[in-house]
Amino acid sequence: MIKRQLNTVLLVALLFGAFIVKAQDTEKNTISAIYQNALTNYDSYNNLRELCTKAPGRLVGSPASELAIQILKAQVGKLQPDTCYLQNYTTPSWRVKSPCRATVQYGSKTESLNVVNLGLSVSTPLTGITGEILEVHSLNAVDSLGSKVVKDKIVFFNRAMDNSKTNTFEAYSGGVDQRAGGAAKAAQYGASGAIVRSLSTEKYDFPHTGVSRYKEGITKIPNISISTNDAEMLSRLNKQHAGVKVWVKSDTETIDSARTSNLIAEIKGSKHPEKIILIGAHMDAWFNSPGAHDDGAGCEQMIDVFRIFKELNIKPENTIRLVLFMDEEMYQSGSKVYAASVGKEKREHIVSIESDAGGLLPLGFGIDAGDSVINSLKKLAEPLVDYGIYKTGKGYGGVDIAPLKSFGIPLVGLMTNSQRYFEYHHSANDTVENVSRREMQLGTAAIASLVYLIDKNGIKY
Amino acid sequence: MIKRQLNTVLLVALLFGAFIVKAQDTEKNTISAIYQNALTNYDSYNNLRELCTKAPGRLVGSPASELAIQILKAQVGKLQPDTCYLQNYTTPSWRVKSPCRATVQYGSKTESLNVVNLGLSVSTPLTGITGEILEVHSLNAVDSLGSKVVKDKIVFFNRAMDNSKTNTFEAYSGGVDQRAGGAAKAAQYGASGAIVRSLSTEKYDFPHTGVSRYKEGITKIPNISISTNDAEMLSRLNKQHAGVKVWVKSDTETIDSARTSNLIAEIKGSKHPEKIILIGAHMDAWFNSPGAHDDGAGCEQMIDVFRIFKELNIKPENTIRLVLFMDEEMYQSGSKVYAASVGKEKREHIVSIESDAGGLLPLGFGIDAGDSVINSLKKLAEPLVDYGIYKTGKGYGGVDIAPLKSFGIPLVGLMTNSQRYFEYHHSANDTVENVSRREMQLGTAAIASLVYLIDKNGIKY
Repeated sequence: MIKRQLNTVLLVALLFGAFIVKAQDTEKNTISAIYQNALTNYDSYNNLRELCTKAPGRLVGSPASELAIQILKAQVGKLQPDTCYLQNYTTPSWRVKSPCRATVQYGSKTESLNVVNLGLSVSTPLTGITGEILEVHSLNAVDSLGSKVVKDKIVFFNRAMDNSKTNTFEAYSGGVDQRAGGAAKAAQYGASGAIVRSLSTEKYDFPHTGVSRYKEGITKIPNISISTNDAEMLSRLNKQHAGVKVWVKSDTETIDSARTSNLIAEIKGSKHPEKIILIGAHMDAWFNSPGAHDDGAGCEQMIDVFRIFKELNIKPENTIRLVLFMDEEMYQSGSKVYAASVGKEKREHIVSIESDAGGLLPLGFGIDAGDSVINSLKKLAEPLVDYGIYKTGKGYGGVDIAPLKSFGIPLVGLMTNSQRYFEYHHSANDTVENVSRREMQLGTAAIASLVYLIDKNGIKY
Repeated sequence: MIKRQLNTVLLVALLFGAFIVKAQDTEKNTISAIYQNALTNYDSYNNLRELCTKAPGRLVGSPASELAIQILKAQVGKLQPDTCYLQNYTTPSWRVKSPCRATVQYGSKTESLNVVNLGLSVSTPLTGITGEILEVHSLNAVDSLGSKVVKDKIVFFNRAMDNSKTNTFEAYSGGVDQRAGGAAKAAQYGASGAIVRSLSTEKYDFPHTGVSRYKEGITKIPNISISTNDAEMLSRLNKQHAGVKVWVKSDTETIDSARTSNLIAEIKGSKHPEKIILIGAHMDAWFNSPGAHDDGAGCEQMIDVFRIFKELNIKPENTIRLVLFMDEEMYQSGSKVYAASVGKEKREHIVSIESDAGGLLPLGFGIDAGDSVINSLKKLAEPLVDYGIYKTGKGYGGVDIAPLKSFGIPLVGLMTNSQRYFEYHHSANDTVENVSRREMQLGTAAIASLVYLIDKNGIKY
């Protein structure tokens, strides 16, 4: 009798064990199928080419941004999701009316410079402004010099990104203050303009833009970015010659109210349609850039997750919601509008996952959440280590999903090989040719696999 | 007394422990300094640009290859190594006299095709050859069809690389038989020519070349590579139309004897000048390619190891010998000449390290040696895991160092992210613009660090 009971216990244990092994086998096979499907597919890369060639410079409120929304909506629509709609709203915006120009004058010579407006920069008068340049390497240096030295100068922020860091996003964080706050700081002491060295790891001719902020109550001054090559030339000339002057012409305008949209689509959950796994990226890109890595690739990766689920006939238990946000670059208006609508809906988000680190070799997922969620997701993502996703852990989610944190929603960001990112970021060099299809598709496969694993196993909060 | 002895033992143990900790700290600091130096340096990338723009298509025996040797010798010479000399020899060679051309004729239409000669291909008559095409997907298929079907046809090998594999080098190995042996197989059954689909992971217009071999005693037939896009077009047209014909013009010649060289340079060991740590790469590149990843990057990485040792004032105990091999692509003549000279010299090589997997993100070192060497090198390379070198283990060394294995010399190959390699390999797309400076420099830093660690700690055989 005791023996029979023991046998039964053993049998149950064995069957249960077999069940776990089988479940793991199924998961392993599904992940393998996801990777094989992603790597052999060219649709998503062709979609990226369509987006970046037809709608480059798709800054919020621009005609290109409206075209981008339509292109992406059509690409999603082809996959026949259960829902696909626009979340419309209005927002202020800003635009470049004609490309900014600059020259350097030394001795009897004049040379043109590779420059681009920084985001939200004001215009110069029609004839431009001319001024002596004052080279500095920090915002503090401007404080130290004070009005006497700074007044009427064009302040030239020329601190290079710290290339000695192995992670370029860290180098970016350490360098972005000049771009974001340089003009405001210079204006505080009466400067007539600001020129900022581009945030690039490389020495070349592409100028990189990005958002900058003025301070309320202080006169706004024209604010431009210069290529790393020309920053070095300007610095050299300014040391070699007396009375070096720069001429800058900027022609921009703010837009009080532009109509725009987020794009939302869903594959409804078979068991828990009210529970949401959010996958997101942003549709907008800077006026001077095709926006292939930032963030066309993210958009196409998330759309391709839908394609893969459909083609492999993976029917999720929870709803997978695709959100392509508008206006990550300037005001994060799409992100705020979406977050507000979530608050209103009171719908339950299991997790939100963003891809906004380029269509580059994926290395892991950054998780912005409590320890238990981090551990749970690390455990879930273990089968992906064999596919090179070995760096999953505490980290950063993404700008667009950031406001969801206040609702207690875990944020997850695709972590990529950062080495090449700042060759492209916010510049004309961010082209589809500089995206590797296979690297982008490995990112897609990693995201699709994580979504599948979360849907199947849940997260322990 | 006993207590005093115990104290002494404890003190010795503590001091010894402190010594180990200090040694590890020194190593950690040196590796950190190597990475910082590599990542902030632009010399090596500028050297690569010089090599690839001044001496593209530097196939053994060509004027470009002679120029490449001079360029690289000058680059090495600037670093003032203890020795720097050419190891001269003669070898047969082969060249393309004028670029090969091909057209497809269907109905009343003729379209030109993106093609390139495969390595060692013979010429057609001056007016070219015209023939019906026979599409096959394997060498076995040609055997099965036999002379009746194959005779006088132009056999079109159109099996695509298997993109579902996550490691593209595996996909390459699985696809290379068509290129290496397709023409020989087709000739065996009387075909008039061979066209082979390019070994590329992508669908585009670049044809890729590479070596192919004929069989002794069988008529050699013209042998060309076609871009993946045009391979798909040719296949489609051949299905849609009857009597599709292809015209091919090939103009090549073999060279009986060309004078050429390996380039050798050394930093002499301070303690054991007779013991050698070999670092190598190959100078030659296919006639149609700037050869930036294959293998300009490898050459520049190895040269940069010298620069880093010099700049950081790291004085190795053993001799670091740089060997830039000639003719990896066709006959491996440089590799054979070097190996023969080693046999003659009876000098002791501790290890040989090659970089020939592109200037791409490094992920580890492949080791071709016995288990004890593998374990010893894995242990040595542990500090590099923090720098993303996490895949070190049993693997492949390199074509140029392969003959050294018979002398019992451990072979080590830099392992890179393979995703983008076959977008470039053996094609006009292998440009310096497609090499990321930071990725290449991370490879350099990994090699320099490994050389430093081996020099300091030795390998357990």
